[in-house]
Amino acid sequence: MGMQQTKFILPEDRIPRAWYNIAADLPTPPPPPLHPGTGQPIGPADLAPLFPMALIGQEVSAEREIEIPDPVREAYSMYRPSPLYRAHRLERALGTSARIYYKYEGVSPAGSHKPNTAIPQAWYNQQEGVKRLSTETGAGQWGTALSLAGAIFGLEVKVYMVRASYDQKPYRRNLMEVYGASVVASPSPDTNYGRSVLAEHPDSPGSLGMAISEAVEDAATRDDTKYALGSVLNHVLLHQTVIGLEAMEQMEMAGDEPDILVACTGGGSNFAGLTFPFLGRKLRGEADYRIIAVEPEAAPSLTRGVYRYDFGDTGQMTPLVKMHTLGHDFIPEPIHAGGLRYHGMSPLVSLVKELGLIEAQAVHQRKTFESGVRFARAEGILPAPEPTHAISVVIDEALKANAEGTSPVILFNLCGHGHFDLAAYARYLSGDLVDYEFPADQVRVALEGLEGLPV
Amino acid sequence: MGMQQTKFILPEDRIPRAWYNIAADLPTPPPPPLHPGTGQPIGPADLAPLFPMALIGQEVSAEREIEIPDPVREAYSMYRPSPLYRAHRLERALGTSARIYYKYEGVSPAGSHKPNTAIPQAWYNQQEGVKRLSTETGAGQWGTALSLAGAIFGLEVKVYMVRASYDQKPYRRNLMEVYGASVVASPSPDTNYGRSVLAEHPDSPGSLGMAISEAVEDAATRDDTKYALGSVLNHVLLHQTVIGLEAMEQMEMAGDEPDILVACTGGGSNFAGLTFPFLGRKLRGEADYRIIAVEPEAAPSLTRGVYRYDFGDTGQMTPLVKMHTLGHDFIPEPIHAGGLRYHGMSPLVSLVKELGLIEAQAVHQRKTFESGVRFARAEGILPAPEPTHAISVVIDEALKANAEGTSPVILFNLCGHGHFDLAAYARYLSGDLVDYEFPADQVRVALEGLEGLPV
Repeated sequence: MGMQQTKFILPEDRIPRAWYNIAADLPTPPPPPLHPGTGQPIGPADLAPLFPMALIGQEVSAEREIEIPDPVREAYSMYRPSPLYRAHRLERALGTSARIYYKYEGVSPAGSHKPNTAIPQAWYNQQEGVKRLSTETGAGQWGTALSLAGAIFGLEVKVYMVRASYDQKPYRRNLMEVYGASVVASPSPDTNYGRSVLAEHPDSPGSLGMAISEAVEDAATRDDTKYALGSVLNHVLLHQTVIGLEAMEQMEMAGDEPDILVACTGGGSNFAGLTFPFLGRKLRGEADYRIIAVEPEAAPSLTRGVYRYDFGDTGQMTPLVKMHTLGHDFIPEPIHAGGLRYHGMSPLVSLVKELGLIEAQAVHQRKTFESGVRFARAEGILPAPEPTHAISVVIDEALKANAEGTSPVILFNLCGHGHFDLAAYARYLSGDLVDYEFPADQVRVALEGLEGLPV
Repeated sequence: MGMQQTKFILPEDRIPRAWYNIAADLPTPPPPPLHPGTGQPIGPADLAPLFPMALIGQEVSAEREIEIPDPVREAYSMYRPSPLYRAHRLERALGTSARIYYKYEGVSPAGSHKPNTAIPQAWYNQQEGVKRLSTETGAGQWGTALSLAGAIFGLEVKVYMVRASYDQKPYRRNLMEVYGASVVASPSPDTNYGRSVLAEHPDSPGSLGMAISEAVEDAATRDDTKYALGSVLNHVLLHQTVIGLEAMEQMEMAGDEPDILVACTGGGSNFAGLTFPFLGRKLRGEADYRIIAVEPEAAPSLTRGVYRYDFGDTGQMTPLVKMHTLGHDFIPEPIHAGGLRYHGMSPLVSLVKELGLIEAQAVHQRKTFESGVRFARAEGILPAPEPTHAISVVIDEALKANAEGTSPVILFNLCGHGHFDLAAYARYLSGDLVDYEFPADQVRVALEGLEGLPV
């Protein structure tokens, strides 16, 4: 029929049978998490109050492939394999000689890539007899995903939602409630940590770091409850590799091989999900790629942070992990890409950056929304504010290719739709959106707070 | 692997090559639209100020198959073929012996089935040199779809959005603006009709009937502009048959044949889109099905209206069409299924109901939201309020099958997602949602307004 193919779609039995574990291919093992009290590497027993043993095992595994259980693959089949698109219309709109592809994770019922790990986390917990999960959420993508997974496997879910989002994004909260979760604004009166913050700052807008502290306390103090985290940890990044594993097969269907991989990164799970399987090939000498992580100027941990041990949360309840950090007291400005508003970066993504295996760029939010509108008008899909960070770098690279007379193949991850972010788009269209300069002073103070911690 | 298949997905080259025109198989031709002034059947010349000739030709065609142009199929490939799901999880949750399938149209970038006709309408207009389209929208699904189609084919789009929705659903409006459309609250100061309403009722919340009058006037009074309608007309229903045509092929993939087809109906395009290709088989004696149209108790044109000539709009600017109607002055209560709030029903759907070829049921909104929550917790996807009408009848039929010891195969159309309807779900969950009794007195008055019109 002469029509160019737009979507590359795998049949359901091509949902990957194993996750890819990059630890098997790294030249140096990732530095271990440390106990904040002793400064010594933590063991499984330290993590057991928070996580089921299966996930603790995955956290430290060095096996290259970790089998995906059939009930997890069956739940994945609600939306996986996700489509890979060739961006013909965007290419024409840009007049570019580059060939642009994107993997689209917004097809999940929660609207983002987050169910890729919420589903197995809920399943492993259910298998070990856990009845209830606690978690935090900022913009609401992760809380929605875990609420969905709880509905699938019959687990109660308690979500500590950053107060600012709780008030500004009632629809995300409503969706969690439709799935049956109970959602409370953080800081909340439901935990000791929350009560202590409220006593000092009754009007605190909250932060992701505070909400993590509350959710961790909830799980640590209840026998029936474990904690679930939506990014940063090794097992979370592991689960997300279904994205890249499928994309490899789909790029073969398309008869192309990427030269450049682009993904946005907040905690790191979206970035790792797409790129780690490709990075594995690069580490094994089978292929070479430019791999670009894109973060917001307002929370530029990879491009402006330091690489050292820090807490994952504000309340200093988590283990210390070695990562690029802006300091656990640093609270990013209220950019609309809530999923990228985090002081740290996953230890694995931090390590591959430190090893020079990937590049990183930071972009301002007005530019990202401009790219999002351009993308929506060409491709139809409205991107969430997080992946517009990736899109803006993809457009830069595509235009650079024109100037240089090259035809690179660019692959990026469109990790979610923006149906709950239209107030932000409206602010952009009306000219009300502001860019935030890098808050160098705030970060300097936050980093001073790391004095005395192991390096 | 022993996993049950969840999704049945056709490759892109199986996007249908022709739409199915039920007029070819009907035992009696549909009564012609009449000129409101003369009472005589209208001809192409009467419609030419509003529609391009290609669509006028489709409106009166008796050909069984009408070819889909390649540029339309290429734009369809943004999201078509859409997936067919087997509702394994819902079946388990209900403990039913029925086998339930659904076609999911929420994968379109606009979030509903509406782009199936917005795309060809925009394309045919562009081919005939039209630069600008005017339309109305109630809940916003249709306006979003036409804005998207305008962005695809480079047409300006002006949307008259019912004032109540304009104020209550800013996100839908924002999405149209992201696609580049200009959106105004109706009644508006931009048309004579709008100004006349505002002069008498400055605070009018508007209605779909009023907004149609404004959009029709806009197109009729500007040389560069034509009008686009999202439902009711024959060519609109025609374009939607891609849904049923794909579903037939996917049911074959699944190795099942439906016994019962269910779809919600407001103007009729979603209902016709799924069921007309199957109804064609029934009319040709090739198969038999129960076909159920589901409408809201608050706007029950098929179950409580009269079958006679009426206007499509409040301002009496459209041709007279023979249909089930509650009277063009009838304004339905503000149920959340905005896409079903219309006084009339498509002439083709009305005719097949009058011929006894389909059944119709009306349901109250609290029951539909209860069904929507049940569906979301089982299947993950959050349905729009419109298809929850279909879901509630599907659940009734599935539970009846248990009681009767039968195992029917039920197929319904999940015509859109509910990401912009979470305020309504929140009202349901908090117990604030009300049911509206059938307003018999209002309808009696509205029907009196039809005195003197042809029957």
